[in-house]
Amino acid sequence: MLSNRVGIVVKPDSALAERVAVRAARALAELDAEVLIEEDTWNTYDSLQDFDKFSLQDPPEKMIVIGGDGTLLRTLMKMKNPEKTIIMAVRAGKRGFLLDVESYEIEERIEDFLNDEYKVHVYPRLQAFYPGGSNCVMNDAVLVMDNAKLVRLAVYVGGERIMGIDGDGLVVSTTVGSTAYSLSAGGPIIDPSLQVIVLTPLNPVQLYLRPVVLPLEATIDIEVKSNSNPLFLVLDGQESIRLNPGDTVRVKLCDSKVKLARFKWWENYYERLYTRVFSYL
Amino acid sequence: MLSNRVGIVVKPDSALAERVAVRAARALAELDAEVLIEEDTWNTYDSLQDFDKFSLQDPPEKMIVIGGDGTLLRTLMKMKNPEKTIIMAVRAGKRGFLLDVESYEIEERIEDFLNDEYKVHVYPRLQAFYPGGSNCVMNDAVLVMDNAKLVRLAVYVGGERIMGIDGDGLVVSTTVGSTAYSLSAGGPIIDPSLQVIVLTPLNPVQLYLRPVVLPLEATIDIEVKSNSNPLFLVLDGQESIRLNPGDTVRVKLCDSKVKLARFKWWENYYERLYTRVFSYL
Amino acid sequence: MLSNRVGIVVKPDSALAERVAVRAARALAELDAEVLIEEDTWNTYDSLQDFDKFSLQDPPEKMIVIGGDGTLLRTLMKMKNPEKTIIMAVRAGKRGFLLDVESYEIEERIEDFLNDEYKVHVYPRLQAFYPGGSNCVMNDAVLVMDNAKLVRLAVYVGGERIMGIDGDGLVVSTTVGSTAYSLSAGGPIIDPSLQVIVLTPLNPVQLYLRPVVLPLEATIDIEVKSNSNPLFLVLDGQESIRLNPGDTVRVKLCDSKVKLARFKWWENYYERLYTRVFSYL
Amino acid sequence: MLSNRVGIVVKPDSALAERVAVRAARALAELDAEVLIEEDTWNTYDSLQDFDKFSLQDPPEKMIVIGGDGTLLRTLMKMKNPEKTIIMAVRAGKRGFLLDVESYEIEERIEDFLNDEYKVHVYPRLQAFYPGGSNCVMNDAVLVMDNAKLVRLAVYVGGERIMGIDGDGLVVSTTVGSTAYSLSAGGPIIDPSLQVIVLTPLNPVQLYLRPVVLPLEATIDIEVKSNSNPLFLVLDGQESIRLNPGDTVRVKLCDSKVKLARFKWWENYYERLYTRVFSYL
Repeated sequence: MLSNRVGIVVKPDSALAERVAVRAARALAELDAEVLIEEDTWNTYDSLQDFDKFSLQDPPEKMIVIGGDGTLLRTLMKMKNPEKTIIMAVRAGKRGFLLDVESYEIEERIEDFLNDEYKVHVYPRLQAFYPGGSNCVMNDAVLVMDNAKLVRLAVYVGGERIMGIDGDGLVVSTTVGSTAYSLSAGGPIIDPSLQVIVLTPLNPVQLYLRPVVLPLEATIDIEVKSNSNPLFLVLDGQESIRLNPGDTVRVKLCDSKVKLARFKWWENYYERLYTRVFSYL
Repeated sequence: MLSNRVGIVVKPDSALAERVAVRAARALAELDAEVLIEEDTWNTYDSLQDFDKFSLQDPPEKMIVIGGDGTLLRTLMKMKNPEKTIIMAVRAGKRGFLLDVESYEIEERIEDFLNDEYKVHVYPRLQAFYPGGSNCVMNDAVLVMDNAKLVRLAVYVGGERIMGIDGDGLVVSTTVGSTAYSLSAGGPIIDPSLQVIVLTPLNPVQLYLRPVVLPLEATIDIEVKSNSNPLFLVLDGQESIRLNPGDTVRVKLCDSKVKLARFKWWENYYERLYTRVFSYL
Repeated sequence: MLSNRVGIVVKPDSALAERVAVRAARALAELDAEVLIEEDTWNTYDSLQDFDKFSLQDPPEKMIVIGGDGTLLRTLMKMKNPEKTIIMAVRAGKRGFLLDVESYEIEERIEDFLNDEYKVHVYPRLQAFYPGGSNCVMNDAVLVMDNAKLVRLAVYVGGERIMGIDGDGLVVSTTVGSTAYSLSAGGPIIDPSLQVIVLTPLNPVQLYLRPVVLPLEATIDIEVKSNSNPLFLVLDGQESIRLNPGDTVRVKLCDSKVKLARFKWWENYYERLYTRVFSYL
Repeated sequence: MLSNRVGIVVKPDSALAERVAVRAARALAELDAEVLIEEDTWNTYDSLQDFDKFSLQDPPEKMIVIGGDGTLLRTLMKMKNPEKTIIMAVRAGKRGFLLDVESYEIEERIEDFLNDEYKVHVYPRLQAFYPGGSNCVMNDAVLVMDNAKLVRLAVYVGGERIMGIDGDGLVVSTTVGSTAYSLSAGGPIIDPSLQVIVLTPLNPVQLYLRPVVLPLEATIDIEVKSNSNPLFLVLDGQESIRLNPGDTVRVKLCDSKVKLARFKWWENYYERLYTRVFSYL
């Protein structure tokens, strides 16, 4: 059995998420778990300051993230090695495709979480190396134009050129990211039981270009051509790095994975997917 | 017969465009035309400073634009009323779909231009009204995300809501613009003999959205929803205006049109189109 | 005021459509209209044989069509000149995008119909000329493969070649047909206030092909190339003609139009459209 | 070393393929190989009747197929167990994406073939089970409408419903088939190093449907809904089976694979792919 220290991370500036967090902390305390509050969350919400703080640089083995998909992705991005922590993801208000615990059921799921009654779902990530740094993403690394100025890219896989793109950019997506930005840009849906990388060009002038599906082990080099405009590399929609002509971004499998606790594994992935699509009607 | 005063506008920072301009000025002078140089061009290129200057606020009835599509679009955007001027568009180096005079034939075409031996092709434009101003476009008015942050728009035609977009934005295109950005974004090709407006959503989360073709007389209101991120309105790829949640952009037919001199009317529009597509191979 | 002779046409093999037709006949009789039953309908349904018959070759000035979109399209195809008749279109059970009278309101709308309280909406049609005959369509003329065998077409507009297609075929659609088959095949939505022709290639090997929007006055010639497999020309989904290599189909504006009575003009066309799309969930 | 008995299969009705076959037979004979001619080929071409016949039910360990992609696919479909045979595929005239030996180099490649100087590339296949039979495909199993009549399908993976399609049908494709029909229908390109199944809906009314990529081990059940029109199941573009409402097709991994001899492994798969796409210009 894992330790009963449980950290809580909460979406900032959300009264709803705060209320859910207070309920979560209370439920944990009643079950004799040790409650820790992530330091930025602690600083944001007075109502959680009775508990001790922790840093995402040194997180407990169990963590509850409360908010939307963005909250989870941002939290993962700040952790040195998320693989050491099992995360329970609770949806508070916002649409959340990655988050499967609803706020109304949080007390029950916390009891399961403490009793290790869940399945661990392991998600591989991709690491993007750019001039001056690198970071890992769960969904996607996106090269995207700035201010609607044409971007010119050359894409290599294993050293072999597979496409040239003049357009808005390129999405490099994981399996789980295939139903996020990549899908809107025309990419295929990847079954969650299959681990791959998807390259989806963004509005290319080359009308014949199509999304390409690669093995998870592929090494992808994306060169910003010398006659391109400057652009952004956007990691999981959270962090954005300026790229210049001549720069190259390498994307490959990240060493550290993500572990999410899934309580009722989404019985039908596709039903959930279409439901989400239509929540935008 | 129109006057024999002819203005010249040249793409900046291009030795090639400058050489073509010098040849054009010389050919005009030899045919006893009065040569005028647009003031920014005059300031840029020493080799053209023997001639008088003119301002795009008060242009001559005939004008030669030398450069790429961008040069033409930028020039039009700076003119108060382009309808008073007939423009001969000369391609210098860059791809140019709107420009049909090649630099090698410039002397011959200038003789035709002075002798009024050409067809005038009139292009309607669209006027985009945004908070604090308005301007007319020949190709397109594009609402587009900043830094890969989701944009939320509601689109109305004649006051009736026709779509909601959560995604990268929306292209509002003329017929001639239908083969520019709109085409890359999945829009249809509009035959040049038909004058319409095309709305092409950019990578919408709403996967069922499709481009919509409207009559040229339509009044389109695009509302930036209160829960949208800030974005840009980009006019003909040249001018970019920041928009905020709550702002509305209106697009409707512009009072002033564009008149281009076409010497050999492109015998086959579609052949030219596919040739351009494949010049990006 | 138009005559008070009203013809009724009913979808065959539908107990629901029959019930609606009996109600319609009764409502007409009560308002002293003369009820006529189309002869195939008369032969199909015993319950309508108290009334006189009429032939679609010589229809009354007012006609009620009861069924789905297919019933309307088939009826129009059988008429020599539909332009002489105003049609009230009643939906009975099946999805019907063209039909705007619901069966529950039929008595009220019949009163309006007899009193000329409606708007006439005129729909242009396209005429397809094929070896051995011709016919007019309201929605689309589709050239489509037989038994999944590749089709090779060359498409000319006004004598000028605009595309070559190797694939499943081509949809030639009217404005109203733009939201039928053409839409599923990737074509744009055409605003109902705009009258055009849309060419939508079906799954072409030439990945760069895009739908093309033409003026309603265009003359389109589609040549089945000598190395093509045989295929079908399908008119409004109702009539299908076998085509062979070397055959040519010409499509141009049909002399006779269609007149539909619209009682409440669809307040929001786009809302109806999306509703229909999602009725297929 | 494998035996030196080599079978030859030739595309019928092709003078070009026949000439290449005669050269192949002569080259084999000069290298002391035993030449066998497939019986249908033997019956078709007098010039090959000096050699012994063989049946595809009992093929030699090495075989040369001469023609286009269709010749190879048809040959594989007729073999009980293609896995026992290594196939050298020679292109004769027609476009052939699967065939990598050009006719001009056939003598050299035959020497390599006899000396076992090649790489064996193993391609998994899919087996389609339909009412009354089953067969394996290398490229795709396609459910496709007959005579442009709407098809209604429900698709299940591992017993779970993943989509409903009202439209022209569905392509179930292998990795190698992803660049054939599936690509034209909007499917992604699958890297040849990745073995998956791609489901690509054909022109669905459900505009939000997207291609789905599944693991090679998936079991796919496709139900023809009771309100569907009859349709065809087309296997590798070669064999076509009529399906009726209520029928179900199951597709899963086929027990027997295909082994092709690759002499120069296509240095750049993507370059070849785009070259093929543009050979259709």
